[in-house]
Amino acid sequence: MTHRHLLIVAHGSRRQTSNDEVRALGDRVRGLRDPNIDRVEVAFLELAEPTIPEGLARCVADGAREIIVFPYFLAAGTHVAADIPEALDAFRERHPDIKLRLASHLGASSALPMTILDVASQAKYEA
Amino acid sequence: MTHRHLLIVAHGSRRQTSNDEVRALGDRVRGLRDPNIDRVEVAFLELAEPTIPEGLARCVADGAREIIVFPYFLAAGTHVAADIPEALDAFRERHPDIKLRLASHLGASSALPMTILDVASQAKYEA
Repeated sequence: MTHRHLLIVAHGSRRQTSNDEVRALGDRVRGLRDPNIDRVEVAFLELAEPTIPEGLARCVADGAREIIVFPYFLAAGTHVAADIPEALDAFRERHPDIKLRLASHLGASSALPMTILDVASQAKYEA
Repeated sequence: MTHRHLLIVAHGSRRQTSNDEVRALGDRVRGLRDPNIDRVEVAFLELAEPTIPEGLARCVADGAREIIVFPYFLAAGTHVAADIPEALDAFRERHPDIKLRLASHLGASSALPMTILDVASQAKYEA
């Protein structure tokens, strides 16, 4: 067991259905049962729970020794460039024994262009 | 030639760097040279240009006979559920001869969970 957890960090919304979409996405990622990821959690920067500190704490409570943080954001704005790294720094100070990895935000990920072509190829014709 | 064009529709931002990120994503998708897509364009719902009508008009001017519209949105809010379909309806009335296909928005696309695992697997260790 690597005890490697994946924490998907979304912005969070006042629309609960948007937050639920993120939680459902977490379920879908979990459902793929990646052999290199032991658990998949979701957290929100603001407006929804669990917060990032709560999500990280949940990983620790569940035995994580390594946490991959994935910013579920399209653009590299302040949230991606400053807010999320700051939250990770605060966690790192308290948990120097846990490895943290920060993934590329979604909008800059190398896999995204091919994903878009996949989605486009499945588009239905309008009635 | 199918004259099939892909129009990536983003929200648009007051931050020009965010809009430029979308344009760069369009370049990356274009760079994959999908044999089933003749051109890749980008448009914005608001706050940036080209607008959706402008993007669709550009496709027509460039000879599109079929346009796949991809909503580059994480959540199925009003923009995805109403604003984009309304813009397409307006276009369809004026161009009944052009096939329109509306793809799933990014957040609901079936390819996204695997994309996230790909991104996570490439995450670097923090210094």
